[in-house]
Amino acid sequence: MAAEKNTKSVVGGSKLGPKGFQAAGIACGIKTAEGAKDLALIYSEVPARVAGLFTKNRVKAAPILYTRKTVRGGVCRALIVNSGNANACTGKKGLMDVEAMAKLTADVLHIPYQQVLVSSTGVIGQPLPMEKILRGIPSLATKLSPYGFQDAAEAIMTTDTHPKLIAERMATGEGEITILGMAKGAGMIRPQLATMLAFILTDAQLETEILSALLREGVRCTFNRITVDGDTSTNDMILLMANGKGSSTPLYPGDERFHTFKATLFRVMDQLARAIVRDGEGRTKVVEITVRGARNSKEAEKLAFRVAQSPLVKAAFFGQDPNWGRIMAAMGTAEVPFDPQKVDIYFDGDLVVENGVRAKDSSTDKIKEVLKREEFRVIIDLHQGISQASVLTTDLSYDYVRINASYHT
Amino acid sequence: MAAEKNTKSVVGGSKLGPKGFQAAGIACGIKTAEGAKDLALIYSEVPARVAGLFTKNRVKAAPILYTRKTVRGGVCRALIVNSGNANACTGKKGLMDVEAMAKLTADVLHIPYQQVLVSSTGVIGQPLPMEKILRGIPSLATKLSPYGFQDAAEAIMTTDTHPKLIAERMATGEGEITILGMAKGAGMIRPQLATMLAFILTDAQLETEILSALLREGVRCTFNRITVDGDTSTNDMILLMANGKGSSTPLYPGDERFHTFKATLFRVMDQLARAIVRDGEGRTKVVEITVRGARNSKEAEKLAFRVAQSPLVKAAFFGQDPNWGRIMAAMGTAEVPFDPQKVDIYFDGDLVVENGVRAKDSSTDKIKEVLKREEFRVIIDLHQGISQASVLTTDLSYDYVRINASYHT
Repeated sequence: MAAEKNTKSVVGGSKLGPKGFQAAGIACGIKTAEGAKDLALIYSEVPARVAGLFTKNRVKAAPILYTRKTVRGGVCRALIVNSGNANACTGKKGLMDVEAMAKLTADVLHIPYQQVLVSSTGVIGQPLPMEKILRGIPSLATKLSPYGFQDAAEAIMTTDTHPKLIAERMATGEGEITILGMAKGAGMIRPQLATMLAFILTDAQLETEILSALLREGVRCTFNRITVDGDTSTNDMILLMANGKGSSTPLYPGDERFHTFKATLFRVMDQLARAIVRDGEGRTKVVEITVRGARNSKEAEKLAFRVAQSPLVKAAFFGQDPNWGRIMAAMGTAEVPFDPQKVDIYFDGDLVVENGVRAKDSSTDKIKEVLKREEFRVIIDLHQGISQASVLTTDLSYDYVRINASYHT
Repeated sequence: MAAEKNTKSVVGGSKLGPKGFQAAGIACGIKTAEGAKDLALIYSEVPARVAGLFTKNRVKAAPILYTRKTVRGGVCRALIVNSGNANACTGKKGLMDVEAMAKLTADVLHIPYQQVLVSSTGVIGQPLPMEKILRGIPSLATKLSPYGFQDAAEAIMTTDTHPKLIAERMATGEGEITILGMAKGAGMIRPQLATMLAFILTDAQLETEILSALLREGVRCTFNRITVDGDTSTNDMILLMANGKGSSTPLYPGDERFHTFKATLFRVMDQLARAIVRDGEGRTKVVEITVRGARNSKEAEKLAFRVAQSPLVKAAFFGQDPNWGRIMAAMGTAEVPFDPQKVDIYFDGDLVVENGVRAKDSSTDKIKEVLKREEFRVIIDLHQGISQASVLTTDLSYDYVRINASYHT
């Protein structure tokens, strides 16, 4: 792929962001742990084009209602994010608090109020500690730096065990374009209620409509392989900002630079999505569930999600238990027509189920060997078509329960 | 209620079953634990009318395929059940094994082969150990006794911690009618894949069509409050048998005895359903989720199940964490229209959420007090109609994960 030839990837402690972007992250005291960062700021020196995708949960947090509207303007200069409190189910006060956060950020940065986006993640149903946040914003702004992305990525974490920050650079005729992404994790795959935030910044020059289309297409094959419409938190938000400081002319479809850019962008999104699953709450395994041989990709996806979501299947992965019958049983409840007697199942290439029953040459020892691996793949072949879909999931562990039983208090 | 005046209930160690029924349970060696009962037989001295409801999972175990067909005949004499192996995903051999079980049972009891029902529960995807079962059936038959129901209830258990056996008796002009029910538990509420078996026997005299209608109506308001179509195991089966030995004339709708019978039957079913939840895998809490003020009962049920099923809500119950925001967020993903700003939530009578935000007088200490209880109720009022629905659920505990990570091996 051309994209891979001309780009390099910096995963993790990437220092320098896209040209014209700065960031900062500080501890303002929302989180109780001493020194835990909980307030992040991203700033563009020039107006950036912006596109966003937001939770489809009927219960929407105040910052979702606010930022969704603001993004429609298509232009932004700054994004202020707090962790530790979702500002969800907080009524009118919640909306007033979002506005106050946006206003103060705009004042401190001397930018238009309508170009400040707001995002929150954390506990639902508690008023934001506004005194701490309003005290934090001015000092946060003084910390803005082209090297501040690591701090910002830390400040958006909740139950994540490490920040998720990825940068890729691509060469163009006129220099280099950078795409930087940061994300905070969701509890589990297809995060039922755990918030997922992802912010992707680039110094490429793109029009807002093109940015929107790219975001939608990219999310469908990356973040939506781990989360799905209607099963998202009150606060989910994915933003893509492009400030144009890295290219003097806009990228257009058809343009070769555009294709490289698109591939690079999707790779950033894919890496962030995978990083979220790998840091899934309490997980000890990452398992890719692939359903192939389906009549269409919608049915393949439905089946793959059903298996990937089954607590019994996930608990069996945790226990390294070669209980493939639970996979068959989960599929049977997906409301997708298939013939159980045609199903083959592979664990990392080993045929375990053939025509719906235990494969003749399958050995429990061999399956157990696969289940010991930290990452493996389950392939389910329906033999009734040519469509397929993959979903990345985790196991269900003691630690998942521990984390979610004690998160609030 | 008339039903209550004329009936008495014997929960647990009820000895004597309905007239003309006998039962037995033995250990034949399917389960590895020394002396663990795993083979049960229920026998009616005369042909009994029978009605059944079966799993809607697309992947159906061999005994489901077999017994569903046999029940259509409307008459049965015996039911043979094994635990420890579900005989699911076992192909043609599985079907031949069911037939062999039915045939041998018929031979030993000198009854028609077409009047023997078969049921299985346990691990999926492994062939039945037929040698053990075929050796077990004759000795099981010698143990048949009107006092054998406790043994039979033990022999159908898998991860249940105790047998579930309930008997109710009602006086009629001509003596006494008994309804006896036994069940084996499902892993969790709305058991995703854990098998639920329930067998209800009565010496009342009823026609098959009436029996069928009663079973369907009763299940809707009892077992279906804890499990739901499309979310059931490969082996779920509920049978209702009536042999007529307790009444010389059939019970008909309109008849006063019929009303008492119906109320008594539904109470037996309700008690079995509740017993299943109370014995839910690893549960430390039983929580009734009631959604009221809905536009219709379908929407109320959808919302109640969504909350009752959310792993984050259930983990919060386990952690005694007053995290009502997770309830709101779960509701938001149920694809039911409601106005978050009208929602009130009560924990055992204490108003916790009012108009979608934390209630003014609600104290975290008071909520925590409720969450410490072993059983409590969450009432969610939508304020948009007069319909309601309740669902009984458990918490999500370490033990749930432990049990399901290690069940197979």
